[in-house]
Amino acid sequence: MRYCSTCGQKLSRRIPPGDHLERYICDDCGAIHYQNPKIVAGCLPLWENKILLCRRAIEPRIGLWTLPAGFMENGESVEQAAQRETLEEALARVEITSFYTMVSLPHINQVHIMFLGNMVDENFGAGEESLEVRLLDPSEIPWKGLAFASIDYTLRRYVEDSRTGVFAPHISCIDRRPTAGGILVL
Amino acid sequence: MRYCSTCGQKLSRRIPPGDHLERYICDDCGAIHYQNPKIVAGCLPLWENKILLCRRAIEPRIGLWTLPAGFMENGESVEQAAQRETLEEALARVEITSFYTMVSLPHINQVHIMFLGNMVDENFGAGEESLEVRLLDPSEIPWKGLAFASIDYTLRRYVEDSRTGVFAPHISCIDRRPTAGGILVL
Repeated sequence: MRYCSTCGQKLSRRIPPGDHLERYICDDCGAIHYQNPKIVAGCLPLWENKILLCRRAIEPRIGLWTLPAGFMENGESVEQAAQRETLEEALARVEITSFYTMVSLPHINQVHIMFLGNMVDENFGAGEESLEVRLLDPSEIPWKGLAFASIDYTLRRYVEDSRTGVFAPHISCIDRRPTAGGILVL
Repeated sequence: MRYCSTCGQKLSRRIPPGDHLERYICDDCGAIHYQNPKIVAGCLPLWENKILLCRRAIEPRIGLWTLPAGFMENGESVEQAAQRETLEEALARVEITSFYTMVSLPHINQVHIMFLGNMVDENFGAGEESLEVRLLDPSEIPWKGLAFASIDYTLRRYVEDSRTGVFAPHISCIDRRPTAGGILVL
């Protein structure tokens, strides 16, 4: 970020009056350009005790497995974002049944929010961002070929919770910065 | 948003190849400027069964009551954001005990995420953005003087859950757009 999106002049970086963090500020028009974390919303789609997984056709982590998920858009709820991503990436329609995991990733300024969902029918397929999409038994999850830490976290919680049948939400933070203490689980 | 923050040239608005939504695009350098919802993180701070509430010293809703909450910053977890806002607005330190409510507000492109927290001691006070801060019994909540729908939602769930002692998470969407069907509760 180098130029003001309001007036086109060069930005400087300093702490605005009354604030405590450095921001991008336009000395010309006075606009302050805040930067905030983004939400990635997704779903663990279920059909007869099998999980719908997608193999990524795009970077990052091309060729690795993930649950359908992506950046939440303006004008939608988190649940709607999860349903839309499931339709786009796995061509599957889901009914959201519960909120399941929320993982903060402060090193990349993201929060990943995953829901459990039941597929409304057996239809699915590879969307534009997927190489292939498969319904897998929990015993078939490709643990060494998963694309993201938050997906690994969500699938591990699901397999554990399947033993008790209680799928309460799990909240976590995965911080990969060198100064961080590693994985903190609430 | 009128100018490219990367190169300073004028932006146009169209659907990029492979996308399905209009974005701000720079025809000069090719940058695509996405806009995504922001997270407001907050806390329902508890001390001996009383709730810490703040009366707002700033717009919007100056003079009305709220739970300490504010925009999550880059480089922190959602829980850390809630703790930081509680310290800034109510000068109180809390230990986060559980994730409590998540409310999507698609008409303003925000997601409000609230935690339950125990105050670590009885110290509190009015931060710069608060006119006053008070520990209130649930029977004293100023229902007609609350600043935000998500705060009303969170406090109502808390009062209801206090009857059973079970404080499981609540997920909701409050959509104030004319085309929306009103309040949808999962």
